Amino acid sequence: MMISFTNDYSQGACPQILTALAAENLRPNPGYGCDSHCAAAAARIRALTGRPDADVHFLVGGTPANLISLTAFLRPHQAAIAATTGHIAVHESGAIEGAGHKVCTIPAADGKLTPALVRAVCAEYDNDTREHMVQPKLVYISDTTEIGTVYTKSELAALREVCNELGLYLYLDGARLASALTCAANDLTLADIAALTDAFYLGGTKNGALMGEALVILNSALKPDFRYIEKQRGGMLAKGWLLGLQFEVLLADGLWFELARHANAMAMRLAAGAKAAGAGFAAAPCSNQLFVTLPQAAVAPLAEQFGFELWGLPADGRQTVRFVCSWATREEEVDALVAALQKELSAR
Amino acid sequence: MMISFTNDYSQGACPQILTALAAENLRPNPGYGCDSHCAAAAARIRALTGRPDADVHFLVGGTPANLISLTAFLRPHQAAIAATTGHIAVHESGAIEGAGHKVCTIPAADGKLTPALVRAVCAEYDNDTREHMVQPKLVYISDTTEIGTVYTKSELAALREVCNELGLYLYLDGARLASALTCAANDLTLADIAALTDAFYLGGTKNGALMGEALVILNSALKPDFRYIEKQRGGMLAKGWLLGLQFEVLLADGLWFELARHANAMAMRLAAGAKAAGAGFAAAPCSNQLFVTLPQAAVAPLAEQFGFELWGLPADGRQTVRFVCSWATREEEVDALVAALQKELSAR
Amino acid sequence: MMISFTNDYSQGACPQILTALAAENLRPNPGYGCDSHCAAAAARIRALTGRPDADVHFLVGGTPANLISLTAFLRPHQAAIAATTGHIAVHESGAIEGAGHKVCTIPAADGKLTPALVRAVCAEYDNDTREHMVQPKLVYISDTTEIGTVYTKSELAALREVCNELGLYLYLDGARLASALTCAANDLTLADIAALTDAFYLGGTKNGALMGEALVILNSALKPDFRYIEKQRGGMLAKGWLLGLQFEVLLADGLWFELARHANAMAMRLAAGAKAAGAGFAAAPCSNQLFVTLPQAAVAPLAEQFGFELWGLPADGRQTVRFVCSWATREEEVDALVAALQKELSAR
Amino acid sequence: MMISFTNDYSQGACPQILTALAAENLRPNPGYGCDSHCAAAAARIRALTGRPDADVHFLVGGTPANLISLTAFLRPHQAAIAATTGHIAVHESGAIEGAGHKVCTIPAADGKLTPALVRAVCAEYDNDTREHMVQPKLVYISDTTEIGTVYTKSELAALREVCNELGLYLYLDGARLASALTCAANDLTLADIAALTDAFYLGGTKNGALMGEALVILNSALKPDFRYIEKQRGGMLAKGWLLGLQFEVLLADGLWFELARHANAMAMRLAAGAKAAGAGFAAAPCSNQLFVTLPQAAVAPLAEQFGFELWGLPADGRQTVRFVCSWATREEEVDALVAALQKELSAR
Repeated sequence: MMISFTNDYSQGACPQILTALAAENLRPNPGYGCDSHCAAAAARIRALTGRPDADVHFLVGGTPANLISLTAFLRPHQAAIAATTGHIAVHESGAIEGAGHKVCTIPAADGKLTPALVRAVCAEYDNDTREHMVQPKLVYISDTTEIGTVYTKSELAALREVCNELGLYLYLDGARLASALTCAANDLTLADIAALTDAFYLGGTKNGALMGEALVILNSALKPDFRYIEKQRGGMLAKGWLLGLQFEVLLADGLWFELARHANAMAMRLAAGAKAAGAGFAAAPCSNQLFVTLPQAAVAPLAEQFGFELWGLPADGRQTVRFVCSWATREEEVDALVAALQKELSAR
Repeated sequence: MMISFTNDYSQGACPQILTALAAENLRPNPGYGCDSHCAAAAARIRALTGRPDADVHFLVGGTPANLISLTAFLRPHQAAIAATTGHIAVHESGAIEGAGHKVCTIPAADGKLTPALVRAVCAEYDNDTREHMVQPKLVYISDTTEIGTVYTKSELAALREVCNELGLYLYLDGARLASALTCAANDLTLADIAALTDAFYLGGTKNGALMGEALVILNSALKPDFRYIEKQRGGMLAKGWLLGLQFEVLLADGLWFELARHANAMAMRLAAGAKAAGAGFAAAPCSNQLFVTLPQAAVAPLAEQFGFELWGLPADGRQTVRFVCSWATREEEVDALVAALQKELSAR
Repeated sequence: MMISFTNDYSQGACPQILTALAAENLRPNPGYGCDSHCAAAAARIRALTGRPDADVHFLVGGTPANLISLTAFLRPHQAAIAATTGHIAVHESGAIEGAGHKVCTIPAADGKLTPALVRAVCAEYDNDTREHMVQPKLVYISDTTEIGTVYTKSELAALREVCNELGLYLYLDGARLASALTCAANDLTLADIAALTDAFYLGGTKNGALMGEALVILNSALKPDFRYIEKQRGGMLAKGWLLGLQFEVLLADGLWFELARHANAMAMRLAAGAKAAGAGFAAAPCSNQLFVTLPQAAVAPLAEQFGFELWGLPADGRQTVRFVCSWATREEEVDALVAALQKELSAR
Repeated sequence: MMISFTNDYSQGACPQILTALAAENLRPNPGYGCDSHCAAAAARIRALTGRPDADVHFLVGGTPANLISLTAFLRPHQAAIAATTGHIAVHESGAIEGAGHKVCTIPAADGKLTPALVRAVCAEYDNDTREHMVQPKLVYISDTTEIGTVYTKSELAALREVCNELGLYLYLDGARLASALTCAANDLTLADIAALTDAFYLGGTKNGALMGEALVILNSALKPDFRYIEKQRGGMLAKGWLLGLQFEVLLADGLWFELARHANAMAMRLAAGAKAAGAGFAAAPCSNQLFVTLPQAAVAPLAEQFGFELWGLPADGRQTVRFVCSWATREEEVDALVAALQKELSAR
């Protein structure tokens, strides 16, 4: 069987979740997230973030989390600001535009927005013709970013400051937040993130859950009637307790962090091996996604044994590929890939 | 523990599904429904419907199935026709309007549209001012209906005919289709439904799956680019194989039918007992939902032991309640409810 | 030439407007409503309504006024409440649904909503499943209504009260407001309307302007960024001064009222003549629209000389027709129609 | 009085239009564009384009024309391709996104798309993840462009070819089409444009009409039910005959061309004078808009006497300003500006 480094959502759930689901399977639960598991998981998130006032909603995936949040938070003429690489700008089939909002993009070399970039976008929309343009209102960031980098506390605090100054919401897409919070470069906590953003989500799909993201709304102006919009946009799962239960398990004893720590460790092991084998990196290894640059000729042989994605088009005889490690990646799988890289790269 | 007749989605999945999920859990699968389980389940549906040309898409729930289908099928000025009780008309938080489309409703005593009702709606929109009104384009029906009734083959064929004549699509919401197809009043097969509708879905959430509905598109004009719109509206599950696998299990050996047959049998057992106890019925017992009319004073005592929903407001000292049986309902649970009904009703 | 009672917008503008347009034609004006004429007309409206705080926007027609207002005022899950006959419910091609909002309708015999009807609609949406339904948030009324009736001050005040109690906005479509305010049954002033609604518009298109409606926003929560949304939805006229100038003329010396008074007088003259001729009325004559019931056989001969609309389908050998008088209707035209009615009705 | 070069829509209508409006003012016309003037103007456009099959619709402005067209032409997941400077990408307050569609932009130095640029955009969206991105479907161009340049026949033919190859619609925004077709660099005719595009519009607002654009749909797949969507999006003027009549006048004897020829001649006179005075040009003078680069210090003195817009921010002590000539610009106004430029530029 092919060894997969394709992504962090190709397998099912961590065993603890499967066990809990089996145990709970026949107990009737209220529908639509109004159950004790969702309540318990939300309480756990309020404790972890130090925000007893937070609203927590469980959604099945990242695109619905982003789409429904921005639908709920923005008025019709308001727009999101995102890095050109931002997930909402590229890989959600125009979900945000489909909800009526422009995504104003700006290139960000390492996939991270900065106050200067946010200011640059806002400056474009801040002149005498402003009423003839959209109104940037929400800064969309992801941590880890789409290219595996992470925000530091001072970077996030600086974004908060510029958002306060310019009257913007700060929204953090946490599809891979667990990987971010447990990587070496990180100095943020869930409490920091809750203190610095208006809303964010903790990703489950890419960190050991069957599916599910936990949206946390901190800004009380953004809370009213979220569930109406969640339902209206098709995001309210009938058996919402499935989501609550998974987060209950993930957050009870730090499992959510532990799974991500493992994924990161596997990625670092792979990065070290790849580097030793002579591979380059399109982005400095940091979290559970690696962007490795290989001689183009090495790609096909590797693809016979390993699953991974090509990242962009080849250039100068080299191809960047993405290797993703997950909670389910095993050391021997990493070692097999490292060995194959050594073989392919030494051959050239 | 309270015995639940609240709905057919308060418990998890039938054991066969849990077993299959556990067995597949660590095998990497391609994302977004491009996996072998979705392919196998779709093939099974094509075989069961006798329609090798059908497009099959797996969605997480009924509201997203309806919302995304109508978003994909209708142009901006086009509207759906539904019974006043239709799910899209009432209980989806305006999802269809949120997607830009009016739902034109007409009262239908037993929750079923007829050619006459469809004609009546269309006639309202067919005069010299038609361009100043919406254009009815899609007939939305559900089987079973929201009040537990079912369509016969001749009724569905008659709807097909009027749709052909008036240039309308016929869309069937099959959230409880398995219950419909296995109840005594039914004479339809999946092949009939595929032959008579433009699109329909087989419900999983309410018939033994953790979640999931299988949308079947028959009309080739409605097929192109559905997956783009599925993704855009937040309906494409990352681990889409979870849905495919569940339908693979449900449809492999008739389990989907068997589970529903059980739910119906439990409902009929309950109906017989309730009738014997002297309860009335707001709608003739037919499928897995019963609408039972009780003396208002009987409701509170029953609610101490059993979960169920009130249906509308009390009138003349009587209250209609909904009892729903599911794949998970046990005979002794039914019997306990019957006994309680006997006690409460004989007391008054 | 056919004499037209078809509607009140089949002719151009009152002569004073044409004169003013010609006089101003070559003077450069700032675009998009940022000109001195819009400012002057807005100031006049603020004076007439006694509301120096009102925001005033000039739009080209009634549908864009309704559509853009509701787009600006409502969040995605919120709905409008309207009489079944309400313009937004019927004759705007689903504009409100196209903007994402359901219109919750309720039959109102004389086309007028009452507190009881508003309560009845809200009650349907106020139960434990509220999050699964839309949220009624705005009461849409029109004065005159679509069937020519008008609101009294006490009726409007009662609606205001129920809106306050239930947290609803009150929006008044004033396409024919001038006719309403100048008819015999009226006891409202522009100041009353401004005091009792959250927003309303003064119609120009149907009262002597080439085109144009003046939207007045009273509720300060509804004011921010309206012009962005006006532009986004295609409602901001490049030569917005054309609209401002027309309202400047109409409102300077009471011309807007005078034109409507004339239209009403012509309608009353016609009503008296029609009554004397033996015609019936589907709605009591009140403003500039008359709904006259005739023997079906009389319709065709009348239609050879006069323009008018059929209202609904014939029943019991009788047909209701709509005769509309306007600022441009002349006494001799009314008298010609009365004579024809006498001839046709006495013949049968 | 300030002499205005601010834009080409600050004055009213050419005298012929005012005369025709006054003459027609009291004659009743059917509403909503179903009148003889719209019919006659449409017939004239069909003759001028050599396309008896064309559908013609009259809209009040450019933003509604673009917005309603794209709403009617595109499915939910489909996107427009535009130059970064394209009007729909910048100055319509997100109207296209508000209608649910992304605008995919690419920088185009002279404001003109080329086959290579169109291919480059499409290539970004044409890979294995295409279903996770929008689908570019319509190429939006304007002629003249937003920076005053024009397309040649071979350039437009090349765009048609790439559109055919890639399955794209070609839509031309003709807000200033008359200026384009009558400028020295042009070799296109209305017939060419009709032969090479799927839809386009002839601008009236910026070429002598009070308001109005004539949308011409050539591709028969894009024609059905346009009027429903026009009404739904608030774009159907009650007194639509006002638009038809204006185009009847403009197109009867070539007046539309003549007015633009005058505007262009005035712009060329100004360009020659500005060049002689030592001004630079940010874009080569071509049509009725000039983008003139001046020493920053010259701007304020000029602004005391003349109306014009700043174009972007100053750089290196120089500021680009936009001077627009129109049908109403007089030779002596141009000469006054030239004299002022000479004075200001010679002083520095």
